[in-house]
Amino acid sequence: MLREHTIEFRVRYSETDAMGFLYHGNYAPFFEMGRTELFRAQGGNYREMEERGYFFVVAKLTTQFHAPAKYDDLLQLNTRVTRLSPAKLEHEYKLYRDGTLIASASSVLGCLDRAGNIQRISEVLGPAWEEFSS
Amino acid sequence: MLREHTIEFRVRYSETDAMGFLYHGNYAPFFEMGRTELFRAQGGNYREMEERGYFFVVAKLTTQFHAPAKYDDLLQLNTRVTRLSPAKLEHEYKLYRDGTLIASASSVLGCLDRAGNIQRISEVLGPAWEEFSS
Amino acid sequence: MLREHTIEFRVRYSETDAMGFLYHGNYAPFFEMGRTELFRAQGGNYREMEERGYFFVVAKLTTQFHAPAKYDDLLQLNTRVTRLSPAKLEHEYKLYRDGTLIASASSVLGCLDRAGNIQRISEVLGPAWEEFSS
Amino acid sequence: MLREHTIEFRVRYSETDAMGFLYHGNYAPFFEMGRTELFRAQGGNYREMEERGYFFVVAKLTTQFHAPAKYDDLLQLNTRVTRLSPAKLEHEYKLYRDGTLIASASSVLGCLDRAGNIQRISEVLGPAWEEFSS
Repeated sequence: MLREHTIEFRVRYSETDAMGFLYHGNYAPFFEMGRTELFRAQGGNYREMEERGYFFVVAKLTTQFHAPAKYDDLLQLNTRVTRLSPAKLEHEYKLYRDGTLIASASSVLGCLDRAGNIQRISEVLGPAWEEFSS
Repeated sequence: MLREHTIEFRVRYSETDAMGFLYHGNYAPFFEMGRTELFRAQGGNYREMEERGYFFVVAKLTTQFHAPAKYDDLLQLNTRVTRLSPAKLEHEYKLYRDGTLIASASSVLGCLDRAGNIQRISEVLGPAWEEFSS
Repeated sequence: MLREHTIEFRVRYSETDAMGFLYHGNYAPFFEMGRTELFRAQGGNYREMEERGYFFVVAKLTTQFHAPAKYDDLLQLNTRVTRLSPAKLEHEYKLYRDGTLIASASSVLGCLDRAGNIQRISEVLGPAWEEFSS
Repeated sequence: MLREHTIEFRVRYSETDAMGFLYHGNYAPFFEMGRTELFRAQGGNYREMEERGYFFVVAKLTTQFHAPAKYDDLLQLNTRVTRLSPAKLEHEYKLYRDGTLIASASSVLGCLDRAGNIQRISEVLGPAWEEFSS
């Protein structure tokens, strides 16, 4: 199974702040886009997972901001699965602008059902998990 | 029934943009806060409405931006119900900073149930509607 | 000069709300993306305009919401210049999902310098304006 | 000097996501509000700092999400300065709903001038720093 994926997108005006830079709180949605597209590239579909009643929730997110980005900058985000256990899914992120590292981050996700009960990711992902964790 | 209400809040750093001003796209959440608090001041509770299965959706929003606002500005928002028909709920908004009009807006809301079917606001609001529309 | 342009993008999870839909306040950034990309397709660059000291500010925005959109929906936004006068720049927007009209909007922009003084758009755009308005 | 401060605010509809909860990416603005208000309670004013040409930038942010929050929840955020060195300012955050810990976080800030040069926080804050670090 594919373990990493890179997407490219531009900084929107709405994502900047009065300092003239990409606001630090607006990186989290990028990391989520990275996960969405990595999962799609793996043949999965996060929206369908939710329709089936499984929700991946962020339990921890750590971000280091190395350099500012500006409106209209074209950024490249590399998203990588670093660990998959029955209960946790861990990712690492590297955000670049033309080879310059802008930010690096890591996240830990858990999986819940509609009622908020913790799900075993190994069971939710099924065969994909087998393949992945092997 | 109370037809208008004023709230006060500060512009957050996250709401500014690279021009150094409150981003124009961040006014819509303020108007929604105005509706939430007007409804609370009327004795209603929008969250409970949703829990009962009724959703007020914005069908139209018009905003005029008269003057910029900046980070940490203390703003006053006046929200007023201007029209209540069985199918539509209309509001007007005036956003001030110390008496200076920053923005004015108007919205039209409809009411849907969980399945997306249009609801008669007169029935959803019940006695409150009677009182209000009289 | 090119008068209209279409872009395509996906609804992000961060743009949804508790109703399960694309939040109505998150359409304004899309319209701005439409203007940015229309201007780029015309050979302009809004970021460079700002670096030269000219800021296009939204004076009025009207949006009609026709149908909801959901997380991961692939949307098409058509942006069109409808009027260009020395003082105002007007656009219209049509947002679609696979041919279904989700929202339509119109905006009026003015141009300011760093000090907040109104600029004549005809002079800011120069030859492009001549061509455009003819 | 005051080392901690608590603010209270409601979750806005615009801050929720399709899961029905406060979106995890919308906590960062809360922590910034906490810093702004702690600094104000200390007699400082972050906006004036920026007007004088000093910008506090987030170098690292770590957030742990313990329990979900919903629209209209009334939350209490405790912000505490944990470390102040000449080059770094560190905070910890505890976000509660009626005594239940919703999230905990920590951040590291640096200080830059308009040109992006790193500033010594001890010099920027002046006497306040002396008092604080003693």
